[in-house]
Amino acid sequence: MKLSLNTATVKRLTLAEAVAGCVDAGITGIGVWRDRVAEAGGGAAAAKIIGDAGLVVTSLCRGGFFTRPGWEADNRAAITEAAELGTRELVLVVGGLAPDSRDLPGARALVLDALEQLVPHAREVGVRLAIEPLHPMFCADRAVVSTLGQALDLASHFAPQEVGVVVDTYHVWWDPQLFEQIARAAGRISAYQVCDWTLPLPADVLLGRGHVGDGHIEFAPITAAVLAAGYEGHVEVEIFNEQIWAAPGNETIATVVSRHTTHFPEF
Amino acid sequence: MKLSLNTATVKRLTLAEAVAGCVDAGITGIGVWRDRVAEAGGGAAAAKIIGDAGLVVTSLCRGGFFTRPGWEADNRAAITEAAELGTRELVLVVGGLAPDSRDLPGARALVLDALEQLVPHAREVGVRLAIEPLHPMFCADRAVVSTLGQALDLASHFAPQEVGVVVDTYHVWWDPQLFEQIARAAGRISAYQVCDWTLPLPADVLLGRGHVGDGHIEFAPITAAVLAAGYEGHVEVEIFNEQIWAAPGNETIATVVSRHTTHFPEF
Repeated sequence: MKLSLNTATVKRLTLAEAVAGCVDAGITGIGVWRDRVAEAGGGAAAAKIIGDAGLVVTSLCRGGFFTRPGWEADNRAAITEAAELGTRELVLVVGGLAPDSRDLPGARALVLDALEQLVPHAREVGVRLAIEPLHPMFCADRAVVSTLGQALDLASHFAPQEVGVVVDTYHVWWDPQLFEQIARAAGRISAYQVCDWTLPLPADVLLGRGHVGDGHIEFAPITAAVLAAGYEGHVEVEIFNEQIWAAPGNETIATVVSRHTTHFPEF
Repeated sequence: MKLSLNTATVKRLTLAEAVAGCVDAGITGIGVWRDRVAEAGGGAAAAKIIGDAGLVVTSLCRGGFFTRPGWEADNRAAITEAAELGTRELVLVVGGLAPDSRDLPGARALVLDALEQLVPHAREVGVRLAIEPLHPMFCADRAVVSTLGQALDLASHFAPQEVGVVVDTYHVWWDPQLFEQIARAAGRISAYQVCDWTLPLPADVLLGRGHVGDGHIEFAPITAAVLAAGYEGHVEVEIFNEQIWAAPGNETIATVVSRHTTHFPEF
């Protein structure tokens, strides 16, 4: 089962607990957030916990936020950590507008500058920088990269093994150009992340994501397009949702597996 | 002053009160919602209130919602009403997914079908159908047309005087293709609507819009692009916001005028 559990989906579990839950459920991959790596004692310690269980690390979340002070050191540390974890894919959430700035073209130009500064180090340690376009409702505060096409325009300045893109259904499902851009992403799809668009959006729109099947997204055609583009990795389930976080971890994992079996028979 | 007040910005005023507020403040245009027309006694009665005050009707809001039962009769009535009001521009919010459907391409195809059915009647009475792309966060429930490019693709099936597009800063400001699409919209810009993207989004994201200048949008380059595309109409201020609605109407109108003077000296 090429299913990966992103640790953000089971936010209240430690890395060791999440890994054990995966093993029990037959999940073969894990997407790891940096806070879980830090809690586990760093990249090498986390790699041992995950490797001993026989899981694959499908991505490290996350680098980016290129408008924050200290972004360069932070991203270099994330690249090193990804290499220690044995994953090729470092997910980048690029950041929003600079504080008190309305200069959107400027913020977007900054992303290319940051990639140029980071790629040599990443290349050296065998890590790919994976640009994640975020839903346009996060443009001001989280990511000025809002579409897959825009992410690919940025990635095109680099080799496919240096800069990739994340296809996250929550962020891209609405895009009229989605299918042509997934096809264009062949060779650059670093991760296929999934969760559903559910309504109403909660007060904090960051936490409005639902289990696959609970919302408005039709997954089958997106999956078909991702596979047609040559993607050979896992399906990674990343859900931010207070109610799901409040549920026992093993229940959440059971739901993730059940939805996977129904909606992603190809994986 | 080529400033138009959309009646939704002063939701608690009657049409006559909004019209009087415009006249007192030197506002020369008004964008009218159909509920205000109905309250005033219909298209002819509303047209008299507005015309006696010497205001121009810049748009009628709105037709669309093509997945709702009765959509065709409702849209035909809206077209007739626009003609009675003496405005060429009927704003269309096209509607989201059909109930219990995840067929996004199907919902989008339906929009073209609906336009084809409505254009003959609209042409006959001199009304243009103005497709309003809504922010992608409304894709599931309000409008499957999410970008200006997509609206223009639909409009391109018809003559420029038959089907136009609305440029509303709130909905399109984030779009990486915005400026090329505004240029492409030359001859088809039915309305230039403005309000600002403010954070945090409120519990009901429909009501998260701010006065121009209170948020993250840089208006000057968008205005320059709209003018360069040959737009000769008003700037129409349409704000959905509970706090602004709770303020006295004359205060809201004064703020609208003040922001207009600062941010839209070209109009």
